Order: sequence, then C-alpha cells, then structure tokens
Amino acid sequence: MFREIHKRTKKIGQPPGTLIYTGSKKFTIPSITFFNYNADHFHEKKDTDFDAEFLLKNKSGVTWINVEGLHDIELIKKIAEFYQLHPLTIEDILNNGQRPKVEEFKDYIYISTKMIKWSAKTNNFRIEEFNIIIGKNYILTFQDCKTTIFNDLQERLRSTTKQRLREQGSDYLAYRLIDTIVDHYFVVLEVLGNQIEKIEEKIITAPTQKNARTIYRLKHKMLILRKSIWPMREVISHLLQISQDSISSFTHLYLRDVYDHTVQAIDTLETFRDMLSNILDIYLSSLTTRMNEIMKVLTMIATVFIPITFLASVYGMNFDYMPELHWHYGYYIVLTIMIIVVIWMVFFFRRKKWL
Amino acid sequence: MFREIHKRTKKIGQPPGTLIYTGSKKFTIPSITFFNYNADHFHEKKDTDFDAEFLLKNKSGVTWINVEGLHDIELIKKIAEFYQLHPLTIEDILNNGQRPKVEEFKDYIYISTKMIKWSAKTNNFRIEEFNIIIGKNYILTFQDCKTTIFNDLQERLRSTTKQRLREQGSDYLAYRLIDTIVDHYFVVLEVLGNQIEKIEEKIITAPTQKNARTIYRLKHKMLILRKSIWPMREVISHLLQISQDSISSFTHLYLRDVYDHTVQAIDTLETFRDMLSNILDIYLSSLTTRMNEIMKVLTMIATVFIPITFLASVYGMNFDYMPELHWHYGYYIVLTIMIIVVIWMVFFFRRKKWL
Amino acid sequence: MFREIHKRTKKIGQPPGTLIYTGSKKFTIPSITFFNYNADHFHEKKDTDFDAEFLLKNKSGVTWINVEGLHDIELIKKIAEFYQLHPLTIEDILNNGQRPKVEEFKDYIYISTKMIKWSAKTNNFRIEEFNIIIGKNYILTFQDCKTTIFNDLQERLRSTTKQRLREQGSDYLAYRLIDTIVDHYFVVLEVLGNQIEKIEEKIITAPTQKNARTIYRLKHKMLILRKSIWPMREVISHLLQISQDSISSFTHLYLRDVYDHTVQAIDTLETFRDMLSNILDIYLSSLTTRMNEIMKVLTMIATVFIPITFLASVYGMNFDYMPELHWHYGYYIVLTIMIIVVIWMVFFFRRKKWL
Amino acid sequence: MFREIHKRTKKIGQPPGTLIYTGSKKFTIPSITFFNYNADHFHEKKDTDFDAEFLLKNKSGVTWINVEGLHDIELIKKIAEFYQLHPLTIEDILNNGQRPKVEEFKDYIYISTKMIKWSAKTNNFRIEEFNIIIGKNYILTFQDCKTTIFNDLQERLRSTTKQRLREQGSDYLAYRLIDTIVDHYFVVLEVLGNQIEKIEEKIITAPTQKNARTIYRLKHKMLILRKSIWPMREVISHLLQISQDSISSFTHLYLRDVYDHTVQAIDTLETFRDMLSNILDIYLSSLTTRMNEIMKVLTMIATVFIPITFLASVYGMNFDYMPELHWHYGYYIVLTIMIIVVIWMVFFFRRKKWL
Amino acid sequence: MFREIHKRTKKIGQPPGTLIYTGSKKFTIPSITFFNYNADHFHEKKDTDFDAEFLLKNKSGVTWINVEGLHDIELIKKIAEFYQLHPLTIEDILNNGQRPKVEEFKDYIYISTKMIKWSAKTNNFRIEEFNIIIGKNYILTFQDCKTTIFNDLQERLRSTTKQRLREQGSDYLAYRLIDTIVDHYFVVLEVLGNQIEKIEEKIITAPTQKNARTIYRLKHKMLILRKSIWPMREVISHLLQISQDSISSFTHLYLRDVYDHTVQAIDTLETFRDMLSNILDIYLSSLTTRMNEIMKVLTMIATVFIPITFLASVYGMNFDYMPELHWHYGYYIVLTIMIIVVIWMVFFFRRKKWL
Repeated sequence: MFREIHKRTKKIGQPPGTLIYTGSKKFTIPSITFFNYNADHFHEKKDTDFDAEFLLKNKSGVTWINVEGLHDIELIKKIAEFYQLHPLTIEDILNNGQRPKVEEFKDYIYISTKMIKWSAKTNNFRIEEFNIIIGKNYILTFQDCKTTIFNDLQERLRSTTKQRLREQGSDYLAYRLIDTIVDHYFVVLEVLGNQIEKIEEKIITAPTQKNARTIYRLKHKMLILRKSIWPMREVISHLLQISQDSISSFTHLYLRDVYDHTVQAIDTLETFRDMLSNILDIYLSSLTTRMNEIMKVLTMIATVFIPITFLASVYGMNFDYMPELHWHYGYYIVLTIMIIVVIWMVFFFRRKKWL
Repeated sequence: MFREIHKRTKKIGQPPGTLIYTGSKKFTIPSITFFNYNADHFHEKKDTDFDAEFLLKNKSGVTWINVEGLHDIELIKKIAEFYQLHPLTIEDILNNGQRPKVEEFKDYIYISTKMIKWSAKTNNFRIEEFNIIIGKNYILTFQDCKTTIFNDLQERLRSTTKQRLREQGSDYLAYRLIDTIVDHYFVVLEVLGNQIEKIEEKIITAPTQKNARTIYRLKHKMLILRKSIWPMREVISHLLQISQDSISSFTHLYLRDVYDHTVQAIDTLETFRDMLSNILDIYLSSLTTRMNEIMKVLTMIATVFIPITFLASVYGMNFDYMPELHWHYGYYIVLTIMIIVVIWMVFFFRRKKWL
Repeated sequence: MFREIHKRTKKIGQPPGTLIYTGSKKFTIPSITFFNYNADHFHEKKDTDFDAEFLLKNKSGVTWINVEGLHDIELIKKIAEFYQLHPLTIEDILNNGQRPKVEEFKDYIYISTKMIKWSAKTNNFRIEEFNIIIGKNYILTFQDCKTTIFNDLQERLRSTTKQRLREQGSDYLAYRLIDTIVDHYFVVLEVLGNQIEKIEEKIITAPTQKNARTIYRLKHKMLILRKSIWPMREVISHLLQISQDSISSFTHLYLRDVYDHTVQAIDTLETFRDMLSNILDIYLSSLTTRMNEIMKVLTMIATVFIPITFLASVYGMNFDYMPELHWHYGYYIVLTIMIIVVIWMVFFFRRKKWL
Repeated sequence: MFREIHKRTKKIGQPPGTLIYTGSKKFTIPSITFFNYNADHFHEKKDTDFDAEFLLKNKSGVTWINVEGLHDIELIKKIAEFYQLHPLTIEDILNNGQRPKVEEFKDYIYISTKMIKWSAKTNNFRIEEFNIIIGKNYILTFQDCKTTIFNDLQERLRSTTKQRLREQGSDYLAYRLIDTIVDHYFVVLEVLGNQIEKIEEKIITAPTQKNARTIYRLKHKMLILRKSIWPMREVISHLLQISQDSISSFTHLYLRDVYDHTVQAIDTLETFRDMLSNILDIYLSSLTTRMNEIMKVLTMIATVFIPITFLASVYGMNFDYMPELHWHYGYYIVLTIMIIVVIWMVFFFRRKKWL
Repeated sequence: MFREIHKRTKKIGQPPGTLIYTGSKKFTIPSITFFNYNADHFHEKKDTDFDAEFLLKNKSGVTWINVEGLHDIELIKKIAEFYQLHPLTIEDILNNGQRPKVEEFKDYIYISTKMIKWSAKTNNFRIEEFNIIIGKNYILTFQDCKTTIFNDLQERLRSTTKQRLREQGSDYLAYRLIDTIVDHYFVVLEVLGNQIEKIEEKIITAPTQKNARTIYRLKHKMLILRKSIWPMREVISHLLQISQDSISSFTHLYLRDVYDHTVQAIDTLETFRDMLSNILDIYLSSLTTRMNEIMKVLTMIATVFIPITFLASVYGMNFDYMPELHWHYGYYIVLTIMIIVVIWMVFFFRRKKWL
C-alpha cells in the first residue's frame, strides 16, 4: 500500500514516459518465454534476452511473450520498440503501483491487472501486478515475479489435443489469462472466509482482545483486497465495450462470464466485510455484557457484606456503656439480624433478576 | 457461502467449459421429467435417462424437461448436444455456486436463479440453484435437489380445464417458474419477520447475551439472503429488456409484476435489516442502562455504609485515652450521628435523582 | 408489515390472476358510490351492487366509481368485466400488500397508492391501500376501508359553483385524489414531528430507558412510513412521463406540484430519521456521562474513607505491645492524621477536577 | 421545520390554487417597491398598493417589483392578474413552507429559494422564503419579511455610473438576486464554522455534557441548513438547462459561477457535518478514557487497603488464645507485613502500567 | 477552511467581477516569469511587471506567463486586458477560496486547481490555489505564493536536448503542470500513510487518549484533503471531454493517465479514511477491554477480602457472651475458615475464567 505510493513519489520531477523501474529487483536475470502457436503448430522458447529472430521466423498464428522480471529497462525498451508501444504504456508497465485499468491505443489494448496469490508461508496474500498487451496476433505479458498460476494454461497450450485455446486468436488467450487471475481471487477469498468463520466461533466462546485484533487485521486485509478487486470490474466491463475488431464475439461471451465472476468476488468481499462488522459487534456487546456480569458479582458481594460488616463494627466499639454487649443473647441476636439482612438482600437481587 | 467459493476453487486450472460437477451428489440416480403440451394435448414422462425419441415424437406445443440431480455429466451432455447449448451454459449449470444472472445466446436465454426454501426441521432456509433455459418452444430446468415447490404448477399443467398456462408459449411457463420462486422468498421472509418480532419483544424484557446472539444470527441470515435476492432484480429487469421475439408482450406484463414482487422482497429485506439494527441498538443501550442501575445500587450501599463503618472503627480503637468512650451517652451519640449521616446521604441521592 | 407478507404467502400455488381477497373483511356489505359529472351536470348514486345501467345512462362527462370494501369478489369481477380490466390489475386490487406502483395498460393506467391516516385513538397511523384506475373518461377507485379524507373533494364535486374540478377530465380528478393522499402524509409527519420534539426535550432532562424506547418506537415508525412514502416518488415521476394522451398538459403542471410535495415529504422523513439518530446519540452519551458521575461519587467516598478506616483498624488491634495506644495524645494524633489524609484527598480530587 | 409542515396541513381539503396565506403576518402593511431601469433611465417608487399605472408608464427597460409582506392576498391577486400568473404559482408564493424549486411556465420562470440570514441577537440563523418570477422584461420578488441583504444591489441600481447591471436584462438581475442569497449562505457557514472550531477546542479540554449538547445542537442546525441548501443546487442546475430565450448566454456564464458557489457551500456543510461527527467521537472516547482513569484510582486505593485492613481486623479479634498478640514484636511484624503488601501491590500496578 | 469562507464573505455586496484580492499578501513585490519556446528556440524573462513587448516580440511558439503573488490587482488587470479574459475569470483568480473547477470560455479554458505541499517544518500540508489558463498558444498561471514544485519542469524547458515538451503545444504544458500537481498529492499521502502506520502500531501497544487525539487529527486532515482532491477528478474528467481543438489527441492520452492517478489518489485517501476508522475501533474496544480488566482486579480483591474481613469483624465484637472466643482453637478454626473461603473464591474465579 504505502510501498505503492512510495514508488510513485520516486518518479516526481521526471517527464512522463521516463523509464524508471519502481519495483524491487527480485531476481537478477529476467526470464522471457516466447510462445507461438495456432491450431497446427506450437513453438516455445525460453530466453533471458529479447529474440526478434524468433518472432520474425514465426509470424503465423498467435505469439505470446511472457516477461518475468522488469528491472532490465533495456530489455523492455527492445520489446517496446519492436511492437511500437506508446511511452506511457512502457512507463505503466515499469511502474509497479498501478490501479487496474484498460487503455486502448491504436494498435493494441493495454490492461493492467492485479494477481492475488495466497502464500501459506506468510499466512497472507501477495498482490502482484500483471500487465497484458493485446495486439492483433500477439500477447505481451509483463510481471515482476515468477508465477506458477499460469502453468496449467501453458501446459494446455503445449498439449497436442485439438482444443479451443489453440484455435482462437490472441483475445481468447487474454481472456484465459484474466480468467485465471480472477479464479485465484476465489482461492484467497476462500482462505479468508475460513479464517472469518474460525474467528467468529472463537469470539463467541472467548471474546479476548487478541481475537479482536485478528478481526481488525482481517478488516484491514479486506480494505487492501478491495482496492485491487473493485477496479477489475471496470476493467472487464471496459473490455466488454471494446469493438469487435479487437475482441471477437466468440471471446466476448467468455469475457461476460469472467465479468460475472468478478462481480461475484466483489459480492463475496462485501459480504465478508459486513460479516466482520457483525462479528465485531458481537465482540463489543459481549465486552459490555461481561462487564455487567463482573459488576453484578462485585455489587452483590459488596452489598451483602458491607451492611453486616458495619453491624459487626458497631459492636466492636469500646464504649463503656453499650447495654447490648451485656445481654446474654446479644451475640446471637446480632448474628440473627445479620442473617436476616443477607436473606433480604438475596430476595432483593432475585427481584432485580441478578441471581 | 464458503461452500460456493470452495466449489469455484475446485475448478481452477481447467479450461472454461470443462464439465466438472461441483455439487455434492445428493441422490444416486438423477430424475428427468418430460412434459409436452399445448392447449389441446398433454404428455408426461418420468425417466432416469434422456429420451430423445419422446422429443422427436412430440414436436408440437411446448416441451418442458425438468432435470433433478446434476452429478451425471453424461446425461447433461446428451441434453446439451440435443439442444446445442453453449459450453459456458453447461458449465454454469453444473457449477453450483453461481450468482443469479441472465445470459442471452443465439437460440436460447439462460437464467440462473436461487430457490430459497424454509426448512422447519433445521429452522433455517436452504438456498438451491435453479437453472432455466428458455428456447423457442422448450424449457429446460436443472436443479441439484428434489423440490416440491413446482408441484402445484405441474398439477395445473396436467389439469384438463381450459387455462392460460396451456395456451401460452415457453416464455409464459418460464414466468410461472420464476414467479413461484419469488413467491417462496416471501415464505422465508415471513418466518424471519416473525422471528424478528419475537426477538424484539424478548430483548426488551430480557436483554441477555443469548438473545443478542440470536439477533446477530438473524443479521447473518439477512446477509446471505441479500446475496441471493438482490441479483434477482437485475435478472428480471434484464428479462424485461429482451426483445419481443423471445418474450411475448403478453408475458411481458406478467414479468413486470414479478419484478414488482422482487423489489418488494428486497424492500422488506432492507427494512428487516434496519429493524435488526434498531433492535440491536435497544439491546446495547439497555446494557448500559442496566450497568448504570447496578452501579447506582453499589454506590448507594457503599456510600451510605462506608462513612458510618469508619465511625464504628474509630470507636473500636484501643487507645488508653479516648474520652468519648467513657461518656455515659457516647454510644447513643455515635449511633445518632450515624443515623444523621445516613439520612443526609439519602437526601443527597434524592437530589441526584438516584432514588 | 408482516401482515402484508402473510397475505402474499396465502396466495402461493395459485396461478396469477387468481382472485383471492387477501384483506381482512372489515364490514360485511361493500359500498359503491357512482359519480357522473361535467361542467354542466352532476349525478351521484350510492349502492351496494354494481349498477351498469347508471353507467349506460350517464355516458357523457367523467364517471367516478368509488368502491369501499373489497371482500366481495363477484362485485369486483363485474366492474372488471365492464371496464375490461387485465386479470393482473384485479389481482393487484384485491391483494392488499402491494408496493405503490404505476402500470400502464392499453386502455387505462393502474395506480396503487398508500393512504396514511393518523388515528388519535391508537396514537398511531394506519396505512391503507388505495387503488386508482384512470380511464379515458372514468376513474375507478378501490379501497378496503371507509375513508373520510375525500369528503371535502366529493363536497366540491357536488357544489354548483363553476370550478376547475368539474371542467377537467378524469386525469385531473386522479390528480386531486393523489394530492389529497399526499397532503395527509404531512398530517402524520406533523404529529410525528411534534412527538420527536417532545421526546428530544424529555431525553435531555430525563434520559430514562423508557424514553429511549420511545425513540426506538419512533424510528420503527419511520421505517414503516418510509416503505410507503418513498415509492410514491417513483409513482408520480412515472405519471409525469406518461404521454399527453392520458395526462393532459393542464394536469401535468399540477402533478409536478404533487411531485414536489412528495419530495418534500421524503425530505422531512429523512430529516426526522437523522434527528432521531441525533437524539439517540444524546441519550447514549448522557448514559455514559451519568455513569461517570456515579463512579466519581463512589470513588471519592471510597478513596477518602478506605485509608482512614484502615488506620482505625490498626489501632483496633489487640496486641499486647502497641506503644502508641498508651500515649496520652495517641488518639488525637491519629484523628489529626485522618483529617490530614482527608484534606490531602480533597486536594487530589480538586487537581483531577472531580470536585 | 415543524412550522413548515404545519402550514401545509392548514391547507388540506382546499382545492389547489386556493389562496391561503400560511405565513405569520409579521407587519401590518405590506410594502411594494417598483424599479424600472435600463442603461439610460432609472425610476423607483415605494408604495403599499399595486400601482399598474407606474408599470404602464414605464414600459421600456426592466421592471422589478419587490413585495415585502404576503398576508394581503388581494394585493398579490392584483399583481398575479396583471402578469397572468398561474394559480399554482400564486399558491406557492403564499405558501411559506416550500422546498426550493424552479418551475417553467409559458411566460415566466418561477423560482422559490431560501434566504438564510444570521441573527446575532438570537445567535441563530433565520430561514426565509424568497420567491422570484423571471419574465421577459420584468422580475417579481415576494418575501414575507423585510430584508436588508439586497440593499447593496438596489444602491447599485440607483447609481448613475455605467455598469453591467443596468445594461443587462431581467435574467441578469435574477442572477444577481440569487448570487446575493447564495453569498449569504457563506456568512452563516462562517459563523457556524467558528462555533465548531470553538467547541472542538473546548471538548478536548473539558468534555462536559454541556459541551456535548452544544455539538448536538450544531448537528441539528446542520440538518436544517441542509434541507434548505441542497435543493438550491438542483434549482441552479435546472436554470442552467433552460433555453437561451429566457436566460441569455451572457447570464449563463454567471449562473455557472453561482452554481459552483452553491456546490462549495454544500461541500462545506458536509465537511462540517463530518467534523462534528469527528468531534463527537473525541468526546465519547474521552468519556470512556475518563471512566477508565476514575476506575483505576478506585481500584488502586481499594486493592492496596482492603488486604491490609483485613490483616488489621484479624488482630482486632477477641479470641482468648491468639498467640501472636502476645509476641513482643507482633505489632511491628504485622506493620512490616502490611508495608510489604503495599509495596508488592505498587509493583503489581507498575507492571500493569497503571502508575 | 474557515479562512476560505471568510474570504468569500469579505466580498458580499460587491457586483460580480469586482476585483478584490482575498489572499493575505505574502510578499510585497509580485514576480512574473515569461517563457517563450518551441522546438527550436527558448526565451525566458523574469520581471516584476507585465511586459507586453516581450510577448509581441516572441509571437511564435508557446508562451507561458507564470505570476507569483496576486495582491497587485493592477498587474493582473493588465494581463487580463492583453489576453481578453472574462471578468469572472479574473475574479476567480484573485479569489483564493475557490473549489477546483474547469470553465470553458470562447478563447481559453480556465482551470482552478489546488497544490498540496508537505511542509516538514509545520509537520502539516499547505494547500495553495493554482490557476491555469490554457489559450491557443499561451499558458497563464497564477498563484499567491512562491513554489518550487515546477522547478524541474522549468529546467527541462530550458534544456537544449530534443524533447516532447518543447515540441508540443500549450495543452501539453498544461498537462505537465497538472501532472506535477497530482504527483505531489502522493507525496502528502505518503507522509500521512506513514503517520497512520505509526499510530496504528502505537495505539495497539499504548491506547492512550493522546494517541486517540492523533487519530482524530489525522481524520480531520483527511477531510481537508478530500475537499481538495475529490473535485480534481471532475476537473480532469471535464478536460477529457473538451473538443480536440483545445486539447490535442496527443495530450489527451496523457491526460487520461493523470486521470488514473487522481482516481488512485482518491482511492488511497478513502482507504486511509477506512483504516483510520478501523484503528479508532481498535482503540475504543481496547478501552473497554482495559476497563474490564481493571474491574476484574477490583472485583477479585474485593470479593476475596470482603467476606473474610467480615468474619474478622464478627470476632472483634465485644459481646460478653461469645462462646467461640473462649474455645481453645477458635482462632485457628476461624483462620482455617478464612483460607477455605479464599480457596473457594479462587475456584469460583477460575470457573468464571477470570484467572
């Protein structure tokens, strides 16, 4: 969050389109994967540099270039030059603190999305930017980390069985990428949903401050997720309005489906937020109830014993002339009075429904 | 809720249109009912497999195929092939965690709705998905459970008296199905409304934590209901905008009516939510009032007895020279002082309006 | 509220247009009043049955048929047949739990509204449904109770002085009916406004739980009112968009005026809601302030007396060797120490601003 | 507020257009001021009756008739007749409880606005209705009180220096009137802003219930202001959409400016509301903090003294056989134990961070 | 905030377009900088007066006149005359309390924006108005303070390397100015973000009233920021809708980018607000938890010692006939009973989970 803002402020004073890498260099050598395919052929090449020859050799079909690691600005520049990307697009790709958005340019559509992945190790999610450029017959994707979430998709590309993915154009591949990203939102939402269910149970049995803090942390996470997922709705809705030249009517149907999934993810997120507020209310009201209970105990003990202790104190006074002290049954009479006071008090509490 | 998300995550990594049953196989053999009717004739057949012959034999009039139980993917595939359904539609039907929606395809309209049924046994409602496909002269409905809520409707179809239902096309039947579903929302809302009324009364007479938890549980239920009912508004509003080819102007009037009912259901739901918040506020304020009352009792008792107990303690001291102890009326003087202190305290509380 | 829902659930399983009276039969014989008028003539007839002859005899001018009491379904059917009402309209008229709405049919406009009347007896308002059908030259109104709110209007119709009401068509009469209904919203709002003002004053001087409950009850009433008044805005806004064939431009100007009144009623309602929340906040904060005050008294008393009582206890011990006990001024020294402690405590409280 | 509603209910049962004065007759004789001017000439006349001759004599240029005091219905009728005002307009002018609005009629535009003036005497603002009718070359203004806020404007009209005001038409004068009204909103907002700043400071240093009530009163005032200022936005936005025949493009530019001012007034109002909520939160949290502090003192005193008082009580018992009593250093040992208990307690509080 | 309103009220009674300087004269002599450039040449001149000759001499290319200090009305008038600015524009420039807005005039576009700069000295941000006038081939900027935030931009203008900035028209320069302003929003947001993070940590470890007040102060700052940043969205969105004559399609792409940044700034602001509310909730709930804890300690101490102190008091009574006193083991029996009571109490607390 703050990281993102920081990245932006690092660039102040630079003209737009100045290429500054705002990420945090996670591995030293970037990795580029080239895919070229259509229904009939499939070529794949993994490299650390941009290989224009591969592209010139494999002109037919769809080309997908997947770049992992963005700190090598020269590399990005080469790709940008080859595909004639607008300076703003390159800047947006390098800038890691982007809000998900779609921008149409003359020759391509630039989409900035957020991948959200659950990391069991840190028991938290990680948000990574994923940039997609949809051209006539190519897809460029840029990310600043190594991801495994597209492995299944790549495996499917390599597979030789006849299938839609290989037959369709670049827009369909883009859809598949977005679909995968949105599907992973549900993975994170599922884990968080389980955590919410668990904390709800806990807070009822043990309304401790520690559990309360867990709720606040979950609410905080919801805020962060929200900032990434909400704009995706606009992104896909924008894609749905793009003319048929770029997005075929075939893919359009599928995009409509991802749109519904995104709306469902947002729905779930908002329901989670409402549930957390609800749980917090249980917690707060149980605090007050508990306080009431504690106060009741204190008040009962104090109210029962204070009067009879007073009585005992009175007969502990050392006056020379206190006739009661010399009565034969004085002690027993006082004890009896004390018992009566206690019984009367108990009745009083019963009437007040404290017992 | 979480169940639904889980279902979605089960499918990650699969291409769209992959047919995976995400339900939880409630009975071993699916049941299919075929209806074919028009104003003049009526045919009905119950089977466990798809019977294409029946359909070819009964071509005139409207055909309604009702499938209960979705785990037999082969069966679903056969129906889909026969009616040439889009892969996404089949996927949506099999996927049990759908948000209510309408999707127009070339030959048919796909509607995903949520049935909400009250179960007296679990004292809770059950949400089931109900998929409707409206074709030129057929209706396909898919659900993953056996329901009785359409029994009246089927009985009416079978009846021989002249009636609108048999004279109209498939769109009118679809309307009747949706109407029945929406009507059952009111059954659930009525039960919940009664529960809210009951808890409101209880919370005023006995603001216990148990009752508070009932409110929270009701609020939780409202959240779940909301997620199912709100999208129905969009669904029907979408249906109302569909061209007259698919939805006749005759049915259109009736759909407008269901739309009003849905809006009313949403209105009621929102009013319930506001009422629950209102009741919760009563509860919370009564907690604080109660606390005040308890504190008042404690303070009164303590404030009255602490000073006079102090006085008694003073004359319980064992100093050799305490002249008051040897006064003849010392004891009575001290008692009088104590009584004066008590009276003075009572006046003080009166002035403070604590008594 | 719940009543309304119940009515709806009574109808489940019936085909649409099934005529079931969902009201609660308030008087045994329905009453029908026929009015026929134009600038020149005026005919009026009160009956218990539908009199088609009257209508055939009096064809010129505007006809207004006012039906009070809806349990006689046969009667309603006769009227419906005469004016060729759509089955859904009849159903909506008989169904007492309608949301205010406008529905345009080929020959007429159906308007469902809510009359809200203050009943001094129950110290509450009563919401009744009022159905209006605007035809070419007739108005049909249906209600399930006897109302007096249109008496003035009827008197004006009967009056022989030249006036707009008699010169205009059925749309103007409809406007006058709606105007009267909306005007009565302000009667109810005025009474509630006075109650709010009164409770505001009370809660400041005496923040008791009883007064708090009055606020909650008022908030509850606002929720109910809201459900009836908000939709009226849409109703009139819809009427304003209807083509000039049905609503003349003359009446249109007047309807615009009612629209403004409805918006003002909603404005007032919302302001009332905000004021009630505001008052509730005063109440809650005054509870806490009061608690603080109580606690202060307790703490002061306890803090002053507990240390000196301890001192007295020390010298109440029976050790054989306690030299202070035998000092001649021991007692006075201890008393002095006690007074010093008290003074010191008072200074402490002063510094803490508790005194 | 309630006053306004009351006025409306006074009119129930009357046909629309019935002229009933709903104000509260503030001065016995109404005052009318006639202005007639263009770039070259200026005529002014103050009268208590409508003077048609003046109007017929001064036909060229712009005429402004300013009526103060609306209880003389006959007078209003004369003006209405002369300018052929619609009955609804006259009714709206006489009706004092109007929501700000614009209504276009064939020959004129009717604008109802709210003047808000700060009264130092009552330390509160006063809301007065100000009605403007913009005709081809005349302006009629109606108000039920004497105001001085337009004095500057009138002075400028009288002044002989060449200026825009005298050169432009009636629409520009109307703009100037509205501009003056909106400018005075800022006067009221400034005073309230100062009060908010003052109370914010106070509540931090002295969170008393009295100060809390001041906040609630300010919030209440905001609610009232809101009801008057919000609709002004729609009013001016409506004026901006009126065709160029009525509002010249010259004036249009200026109206756009008033629109911005109104939006700014609303912005300020909403920020004030947020600030008041914020201050209220400070107050409430400081109450709880204070309570905590009080409880801490009580608990510390009680926790330190209760155990040692108990110890003293034990050795105040009168058993025949209590060996410790006869020990030579028994008393000192007990005193030492007491001191140890106290020290231990202080350490305990330190650890709990209460000291 | 209040300052701004005050400025507005200073102008009441003046005709629109009256030139009154509402700022607070920060330096005595205004400074004007003239820039004239195109791809080939660059001229710069710093002056204290308006130099029309410079402008007439340098007609080709883009001219940027930057005015710092607005109290010299004569100077502003000269510029306005030269460029034929509308009176309202001049008024708006001089008026320091403007809401950000765009106004299109025939020959130019007037943009009013807010610069927000962090001042490390006061540990707060300063909001300054920045007015931009975009003409055919000139840019006029007016501000009432000396700023350094455009230094980088000016340096770039002066630089001789070939670059976009020098090649493009006045609209591109305007974009660069707005971009710089929006970029600085992130500087402020970053500092505030860090403060929020810091206070969040603090409030968890030490929920003191002082920290609470820091939160309130941050919330207050958010309110102020909001008032300045939100309207910028409309401003840029308005610019995006302006026809291509004024804003070239080249610049349009870049403006779209600033728009995204503004939306991101608003997003961040809103997330900050939510986070502050969240933190406040932690604080409030921790207060109550703390209170519970304090009460528990008090109740435990009191509940354990009050009964046994009572017991001791009983045997401190001085009755002549108290057989227990004379038992040989009476003292030990009582001590044992006391220990049993304490143990029993501890068990009781264990069961209540207070220990």
